Amino acid sequence: MANEVILLDFWPSMFGMRTRIALREKGVEFEYREEDLRNKSPLLLQMNPIHKKIPVLIHNGKPVCESSIQVQYIDEVWSHKNPILPSDPYQRAQARFWADFIDKKVYDVSRKTWTTKGEELEAAKKELIEILKTLESELGDKPYFGGDEFGYVDIALIGFYTWFPAYEKFGNLSIESECPKLMVWVKKCLERETVAKSLPDPHKVTEFVAELRKRFGLE
Amino acid sequence: MANEVILLDFWPSMFGMRTRIALREKGVEFEYREEDLRNKSPLLLQMNPIHKKIPVLIHNGKPVCESSIQVQYIDEVWSHKNPILPSDPYQRAQARFWADFIDKKVYDVSRKTWTTKGEELEAAKKELIEILKTLESELGDKPYFGGDEFGYVDIALIGFYTWFPAYEKFGNLSIESECPKLMVWVKKCLERETVAKSLPDPHKVTEFVAELRKRFGLE
Repeated sequence: MANEVILLDFWPSMFGMRTRIALREKGVEFEYREEDLRNKSPLLLQMNPIHKKIPVLIHNGKPVCESSIQVQYIDEVWSHKNPILPSDPYQRAQARFWADFIDKKVYDVSRKTWTTKGEELEAAKKELIEILKTLESELGDKPYFGGDEFGYVDIALIGFYTWFPAYEKFGNLSIESECPKLMVWVKKCLERETVAKSLPDPHKVTEFVAELRKRFGLE
Repeated sequence: MANEVILLDFWPSMFGMRTRIALREKGVEFEYREEDLRNKSPLLLQMNPIHKKIPVLIHNGKPVCESSIQVQYIDEVWSHKNPILPSDPYQRAQARFWADFIDKKVYDVSRKTWTTKGEELEAAKKELIEILKTLESELGDKPYFGGDEFGYVDIALIGFYTWFPAYEKFGNLSIESECPKLMVWVKKCLERETVAKSLPDPHKVTEFVAELRKRFGLE
């Protein structure tokens, strides 16, 4: 079967970054289509009528929505190389647990570092650092979250790194000094071509966030 | 390997119900341990230090947390009978999408039917019915969400049914008249012994919610 793979995405999306990395890990050729989120394409609305969100992976005309589900789908369809989830059921459950932790905890609170002020901002900063320290503790002295091999949890988290300078600038915090081991892991992930090619320049993300703050009347 | 399976659970939990059903679908013997959520056991805190929530599945001394992850784990470990997820990667992704939709949408809004009043309650009722109608539409004329076989999405949703009378009584709404096809699906699920044995009496859940409302100062 011919594989036609289209990714509807938006460049600063940490969720889209997951799917880009997973596709590149598997060596899958794909057509990247940038969406304008203020004027979503008819294809996006047709392919993800429930959430109307990017990323949407379209494989031979059929949509797969939600980045974590896309990454698992990619791992199952292109199972011939670079396994993303471990093969052992218990290790798979652990990987799913930490990816789910990232989904439930990191996005909402990190967003508050650049959308809130005063007490709400202080609470968000404290919580974000606690969450990142929990992740750092789970990483421990392993090179990657799953051990020696780059995998599912690494893919779930690494895109957030491109937003760290924005969290630091607008939230006035230092992730590097609070979580030095996590930053060692970031550098190791960035050495992978599949990651480096899939992540935007963090300075561009910071400029994008500054624009959003203006648009939201926060500056 | 001997399989020692312990489930830390709380009887009205729609999340615990998922794991009970999955274990029974696979014919796995397990020790059910009821937790007092106002006085959590040292074992619960040790086995789920991150979320400190039930259900926790303990398999040969090792914990698996989060109900959706437990159900997938059970399906992978006891793969010899009653598959829960479809074998086709695309169908698996679709099943994961709808279970994720239930996780993201149903709990928070349904809780508001018995914890809020006035405009917030009216908005929650409207949203809950919309969500259930979306699920009913996805179900269509199939007997189960995945088609002819009971599976992952059915397991994700069916426990909420035991809370429907509480949502209806305290939120003053009628799920049965709004979503008649969904109720046909409920009855079909309840014909399965694995489901019937795993779900509490909805009237007991309603009494439990009435108690919670008193405790929260809502009555």
